Amino acid sequence: MNDSRPIGVFDSGLGGLTAVRALQTLLPNEHIVYFGDTGRVPYGTRSRETVRKYARQDMRFLLSHEVKMVIAACNTVSASVSDDDLSLLHVPFIEVLTPAARRAVSCTKNKKVALIGTPATVKSGAYERAIHALNPDITLTPVACPLFVPLVENGFTADDDPVTTLVAQKYLAPVIESGADTLILGCTHYPILKGVLRRVLGDSVTLIDSGKEAAKQAKSCLMQNGLLAADTQTGETQYYVSDSAESFAMLAEPIIGESVADCATQIDIDTY
Amino acid sequence: MNDSRPIGVFDSGLGGLTAVRALQTLLPNEHIVYFGDTGRVPYGTRSRETVRKYARQDMRFLLSHEVKMVIAACNTVSASVSDDDLSLLHVPFIEVLTPAARRAVSCTKNKKVALIGTPATVKSGAYERAIHALNPDITLTPVACPLFVPLVENGFTADDDPVTTLVAQKYLAPVIESGADTLILGCTHYPILKGVLRRVLGDSVTLIDSGKEAAKQAKSCLMQNGLLAADTQTGETQYYVSDSAESFAMLAEPIIGESVADCATQIDIDTY
Repeated sequence: MNDSRPIGVFDSGLGGLTAVRALQTLLPNEHIVYFGDTGRVPYGTRSRETVRKYARQDMRFLLSHEVKMVIAACNTVSASVSDDDLSLLHVPFIEVLTPAARRAVSCTKNKKVALIGTPATVKSGAYERAIHALNPDITLTPVACPLFVPLVENGFTADDDPVTTLVAQKYLAPVIESGADTLILGCTHYPILKGVLRRVLGDSVTLIDSGKEAAKQAKSCLMQNGLLAADTQTGETQYYVSDSAESFAMLAEPIIGESVADCATQIDIDTY
Repeated sequence: MNDSRPIGVFDSGLGGLTAVRALQTLLPNEHIVYFGDTGRVPYGTRSRETVRKYARQDMRFLLSHEVKMVIAACNTVSASVSDDDLSLLHVPFIEVLTPAARRAVSCTKNKKVALIGTPATVKSGAYERAIHALNPDITLTPVACPLFVPLVENGFTADDDPVTTLVAQKYLAPVIESGADTLILGCTHYPILKGVLRRVLGDSVTLIDSGKEAAKQAKSCLMQNGLLAADTQTGETQYYVSDSAESFAMLAEPIIGESVADCATQIDIDTY
């Protein structure tokens, strides 16, 4: 107990901040080191080998900060890494896909679940495998949504944004068609578009936030392994990015809910 | 004369292929080595320092192929590189910005020119400087269009694509408002969206294709320096990319007008 080391969290860009926000709420005593690969975002439209290479560099960067746990707050990474990639870690590893799949299985009443994600996540079939391992009777409707990440990274996030609404209507048509009562937001960027998604889908569909589910999983794991920080510690978050810290701070503030300008630093990820 | 070495061309991803297509038509005897940084596209939403670093790696890669000329078929790079970055070259360097600016200045009749480009290109002010150096009386209306590159890279390119049309209507409103008779397509991806742009703008505005202008400039430069290939040589193009060669070949084919599957190779750009 009383492990003061930080939790390491990484993502392709801004999306993982939705998981950081959930961690800050659930585990207010924990220090967090965040890495957002803003110099190479997006991941989800790239090949599996490229995503794996980037993920290994991201994990090595976090390990250099003496983290006690690594969270891949990115569905594309969660769906792409292999045991071989993870063998470089000597600390617990949490990904976002399994907790989200588990939550979807426990939420659905009509056994119809839909998934929206990046092309890489959808193509991997990882959600199908995770869900069918838990319950083979569930029908999964997966839909790749390659434009959602660029829309978020460029600030098209207002609840009534006409471009994002048109794109969402196109992407969500097969979800509505499927009659699913549960939709996995299979990319940590997507909760930032919750307002638009809700307007297009209506209120009857349960939305599963993969970053939030991963944060709950991280808490259990820290408790089980005696890795929690002392409850007298005040958790602080350091942010690292591979492109301008200034642009990152501007886009991160509305997601995190406070200014991160003083704790954001640019690093060279190529060297990890 | 009779220099059989290839011309090196690079871009952040697919956009530079519009320049390659123009080169193949203008200079059918020349070999071309193309590098598309598909593992790190887009460039235009990143900071200047990150773009400069990527451009230096791209140029070092091309030099390793013994090229006789380097063409930055990317407006973001053209607007970002410094003399210091270019000092690593010992061959002629052609960028896309100056030829496009020159052409716009000679085309406009009402002295009102508009520019669409990536945020990095627009922010740099490089087009303003180039145009005003040629004619200080011209009014330039610059508009940043961050979503156009992701739309192209994800195939939203049909002339009547509803998403691209809506985005174009939004981005082009200040262009129409300005009364410009000439519009610089200040990103080599944009000619791929010419159909949509034409529908939104109507026929009265002259579109300047920066890749095509750069190809003309490259031809003059080769002639002046005695670097042309023999007219008995049949030009061949080799394509290199930093992500999957297979995905690249699929997206490149409609731009180049023939299959590139047999001449596309993935390389590791980090090592340059």
